[in-house]
Amino acid sequence: MRTQVAIIGSGPSGLLLGRLLTQAGIDSIILDRVDAAYILERVRAGVLEEGTVRMLEEAGVAERMRREGLPHSGFDLTFDGRRHRIDLESLTGGKKVMVYGQTEVTHDLLDQRARDGATSIYNAEDVQPHDFDGEKPYVTYRTDGVTHRIDCDFIIGCDGYHGPSRKAVPENAIKLFEKVYPFGWLGILADVKPVSHELIYANHPRGFALCSMRSLTRSRYYVQCSLDDKVEDWSDERFWDELRRRLPQEVADGLTTGPSFEKSIAPLRSFVAEPMRFGRLFLVGDAAHIVPPTGAKGLNLAVSDVHYVMEGLREHYLEKSEAALDAYSTRALARVWKAVRFSWWMTTMMHRFDDTGPFGQRIQEAELDYLVHSQAASASLAENYVGLPY
Amino acid sequence: MRTQVAIIGSGPSGLLLGRLLTQAGIDSIILDRVDAAYILERVRAGVLEEGTVRMLEEAGVAERMRREGLPHSGFDLTFDGRRHRIDLESLTGGKKVMVYGQTEVTHDLLDQRARDGATSIYNAEDVQPHDFDGEKPYVTYRTDGVTHRIDCDFIIGCDGYHGPSRKAVPENAIKLFEKVYPFGWLGILADVKPVSHELIYANHPRGFALCSMRSLTRSRYYVQCSLDDKVEDWSDERFWDELRRRLPQEVADGLTTGPSFEKSIAPLRSFVAEPMRFGRLFLVGDAAHIVPPTGAKGLNLAVSDVHYVMEGLREHYLEKSEAALDAYSTRALARVWKAVRFSWWMTTMMHRFDDTGPFGQRIQEAELDYLVHSQAASASLAENYVGLPY
Repeated sequence: MRTQVAIIGSGPSGLLLGRLLTQAGIDSIILDRVDAAYILERVRAGVLEEGTVRMLEEAGVAERMRREGLPHSGFDLTFDGRRHRIDLESLTGGKKVMVYGQTEVTHDLLDQRARDGATSIYNAEDVQPHDFDGEKPYVTYRTDGVTHRIDCDFIIGCDGYHGPSRKAVPENAIKLFEKVYPFGWLGILADVKPVSHELIYANHPRGFALCSMRSLTRSRYYVQCSLDDKVEDWSDERFWDELRRRLPQEVADGLTTGPSFEKSIAPLRSFVAEPMRFGRLFLVGDAAHIVPPTGAKGLNLAVSDVHYVMEGLREHYLEKSEAALDAYSTRALARVWKAVRFSWWMTTMMHRFDDTGPFGQRIQEAELDYLVHSQAASASLAENYVGLPY
Repeated sequence: MRTQVAIIGSGPSGLLLGRLLTQAGIDSIILDRVDAAYILERVRAGVLEEGTVRMLEEAGVAERMRREGLPHSGFDLTFDGRRHRIDLESLTGGKKVMVYGQTEVTHDLLDQRARDGATSIYNAEDVQPHDFDGEKPYVTYRTDGVTHRIDCDFIIGCDGYHGPSRKAVPENAIKLFEKVYPFGWLGILADVKPVSHELIYANHPRGFALCSMRSLTRSRYYVQCSLDDKVEDWSDERFWDELRRRLPQEVADGLTTGPSFEKSIAPLRSFVAEPMRFGRLFLVGDAAHIVPPTGAKGLNLAVSDVHYVMEGLREHYLEKSEAALDAYSTRALARVWKAVRFSWWMTTMMHRFDDTGPFGQRIQEAELDYLVHSQAASASLAENYVGLPY
């Protein structure tokens, strides 16, 4: 088999890139080790930056999002029993975010790829990029015990942190940066009315909490937990009690509870691989970087990577210029590190850290107090939250 | 002896408070363990916030500062070989800072106190505040082996970190917060033309550097150094070489060097004592809080404390209201913690930390890159640098 662009990974970034390539008349094959149904079961982020929304619109897959998604023009920060609204729209000169689950984005992109009649290969075992440091890269994979080969011009690794793309890079060619946070997020999904029409980020002596949503009838709630905690230790009742304790009284009083249908604990960490290009292999999204979910940046960063790599592929095929491909790693990483910094900062400001002591605690309180009362500081938070320009 | 307000410490905050009290017709005595000549030998900060300048003007001691001080409408940040100007004036809607040495401020205030004919007692040994939890506080001290007593309504501790005021408070009545930074500042004074007409804060792989000044012919330079370093290890030549290395080439090339006439190493730390009022004893400035010098906040915070305590004393004597005195600790600490946060943040962003590793290093680079390119983030830095409102 031969294609122009082999994409490893059929998550939202791989699918979005595939769609943009199709629109540009560039051929692609998407490979994934699992099948589409499995991919759709993953519960992930749900806050889309303006730039992400624009990319989905350009890709022609925004119709359902426009209908079902929830535009949010602000969110709340709570601390010290008080509740402060960050008015994203007025602080950024009119920008908003869109609450629309990653699962839905993936769904829309999968439907579109089917309509496009473009090739996706699922349940591909042992996917491996080869010879990407030369002119003739190829990808191998196995199905039903048979090894296949796809020759291509470029390999794009949209295969997440555990995927084969980054792992195929020789250790001495890549630099890894990592920070592990000393806590996790216990998250639940429940079909109950969200406690507020916007997100609430809560800083509380018992730990961070987040009131989020997937729709007007489906809530997503999180509480900061110990890395030693087990999901089995957390009955729904215990979860709701703990969440209630971490919210200001007026918010807690309005909380609608109900049985959860998903409950999981996720560790928090920051991770970046440099560079993001190795000859004809390009890393995109989680394959190259992970952020803690506090700033809702994971999916959005993957989409901005897609923007940069697509610009490179478009110029390569349509304008016979390598400039944008050559600039990919530098341009993507400049934006990645700013989002990594923002996610780290918001994580640091909102969580309880046992090791920073009373001084760190007061710094956090002073930062929050300054933040909500300073137009400049609120505007800085807001511009990062809605997404820095590409 | 009897006075209305006994002030311990004849530094700039004690002297400024004394002057404001004189203007309000309230009697004060200032006590210091050393004499005026010794106080004037201390080399300290030199960047005054707008609020500090206004306070000095209100006190009628701004004439020489207006003549000899250098208004600065911005400063430079350098990193990664680049130089970026933070335009304080345009970012804050017209605010500036004033470069005028603390020594000069003290000088002007000492002259004014002499003109006022107000009482200052120097070389007072063993100064001790007493009975400040009751209605009749007094201060004792010794001169020439004789113990004296001053009865008063209030005792104001303007006596710095090592002074007797905070130490007179029972341990269980006070909460201390501290952070010690793992490096120091090696600073020199030299009568050479400053390398730039504004301050330059340099982030460099070899460590932080600061190009500051006292006047158009007197420069104050600093380099981040190890806490193990000894002043004797640093010849002038070594200092100038090290400073030059930490500056962008274009700046280093313009550096005028010459013999230093002061050279010292200062450790960096953050310290806050809560509360700042204990009955009829009020802590002001360094007696209650220390900041690392990176944000130039030390003297300015002492002056804003003076503002709050003066408001309290004025209301007490002239309006027979205790409200402002009762609010002193809360109001002063709210501003103190914001300045402590800012100083901690700027210190963290500008210095090399061995223990944050490559991830922390990249966060620092991303923060600087974001900061100088974001109007909102630059405005936040600027409003803190010129001083948050009282």
